[in-house]
Amino acid sequence: MQKEKIKIGDSASVSKTITETDVYCFAEICGDFNPLHVNEKEAEKSRFGKRICHGMLVSSFISTVLGMYLPGPGSIYLEQSLEFLAPVFIDDTITVTVIVKEINNKIVSLETIVVNQNMQKVIKGYAKVMV
Amino acid sequence: MQKEKIKIGDSASVSKTITETDVYCFAEICGDFNPLHVNEKEAEKSRFGKRICHGMLVSSFISTVLGMYLPGPGSIYLEQSLEFLAPVFIDDTITVTVIVKEINNKIVSLETIVVNQNMQKVIKGYAKVMV
Amino acid sequence: MQKEKIKIGDSASVSKTITETDVYCFAEICGDFNPLHVNEKEAEKSRFGKRICHGMLVSSFISTVLGMYLPGPGSIYLEQSLEFLAPVFIDDTITVTVIVKEINNKIVSLETIVVNQNMQKVIKGYAKVMV
Amino acid sequence: MQKEKIKIGDSASVSKTITETDVYCFAEICGDFNPLHVNEKEAEKSRFGKRICHGMLVSSFISTVLGMYLPGPGSIYLEQSLEFLAPVFIDDTITVTVIVKEINNKIVSLETIVVNQNMQKVIKGYAKVMV
Repeated sequence: MQKEKIKIGDSASVSKTITETDVYCFAEICGDFNPLHVNEKEAEKSRFGKRICHGMLVSSFISTVLGMYLPGPGSIYLEQSLEFLAPVFIDDTITVTVIVKEINNKIVSLETIVVNQNMQKVIKGYAKVMV
Repeated sequence: MQKEKIKIGDSASVSKTITETDVYCFAEICGDFNPLHVNEKEAEKSRFGKRICHGMLVSSFISTVLGMYLPGPGSIYLEQSLEFLAPVFIDDTITVTVIVKEINNKIVSLETIVVNQNMQKVIKGYAKVMV
Repeated sequence: MQKEKIKIGDSASVSKTITETDVYCFAEICGDFNPLHVNEKEAEKSRFGKRICHGMLVSSFISTVLGMYLPGPGSIYLEQSLEFLAPVFIDDTITVTVIVKEINNKIVSLETIVVNQNMQKVIKGYAKVMV
Repeated sequence: MQKEKIKIGDSASVSKTITETDVYCFAEICGDFNPLHVNEKEAEKSRFGKRICHGMLVSSFISTVLGMYLPGPGSIYLEQSLEFLAPVFIDDTITVTVIVKEINNKIVSLETIVVNQNMQKVIKGYAKVMV
């Protein structure tokens, strides 16, 4: 049981290079074949100039940090807000960080931030989990 | 281009039975091996009694409706809020519905609701997308 | 850098219910379509009575504990010995444990044990990694 | 049944170009997100200069040769030892060869060798299987 140990300011991170395989496998699970993600020709004509990763794919790593590291195994997800600030391209290396902001009994509130390899913030938001 | 056609009250849905394969493939992309999702023995001891689907997996279908149907292909995800109200178990059939609530120039705000096969609301939230 | 912290007797574990999805995805990566793993009809006629997981699939979780937890990220795998003691069936829940046995400068030797949900030892072996 | 035919000196091989997809799918099954394998930025800073394949992924092809060709379908894996001699990079083409060294009743012992496209030995070891 880790919940006694958690205190405001605690943080944890995970990092991964997001590949085409990740984007395609994710698209296949949820069926999101938005051409911005899986159609190189259409994506070239978009404002981004090439295929971008699904915002929800990148966000899924927030769940990983919460469920694996902080608060850790057994955590139950209650809420998540997400602001998609900048595109994540295929082969970008993202780092997801969660920081404990508030603890109310068994409910922990955390800031959730995702940056790319240039330390550009790509997603920001807040999570609420029960430990 | 569908953006001229969108009006307040428009809605669209997708539905899928979430299988163990979906849960495992999702866990595997983002590395979220929280025992509630991938360890049947630990999950049996939890409040849920069996393995549950990742909240972010279920939420990923919201992205699908937005990106595929309403507003549709080419949409850019700006914001999403999520409240996880009830667990989704393996083999539950979920239906994700999005309803247009507000349109400001190119920004569309939508209510996003996920129900299970018993019409129980499992996730509610709001999305903001650019068309 | 975790290497200063590692001492003899340290241990770490990971646990997962191994599903048919895992067995099939593994078979597809390495092409090992041995009927004991992917042909239910042939497997029924074998001494095991049903499909078993690939020994190397189960062993791959040893790499996970070594690379993720002990010694942890950045570890380089030098050696692994494996004895397959009992079959792992689809839907068994395995737990892999590694225990530090010897430390020579940057080389750490670990005992590696895999048990199933009945605490039956299914694989035993030794690993050598560089930190 | 092939077991009558097997004699000392018999050999069999399989070959595959290991792609990023293989590495990611393998990492995803076993959860081994060691940055040497899935974080290009961290891997660049390592002694290898880029992402390397999991040793256990490369080793899994030994299981393929044993289970598919020599001794072939129905073989039961008893033991495997592995020495990881050199890194395998993404897009390297590996060839796994097994050579029968000893036959005791139903137990066959084999040398197991993996080379890359430059004929550099990357893994060596021994296997014991029951036919």
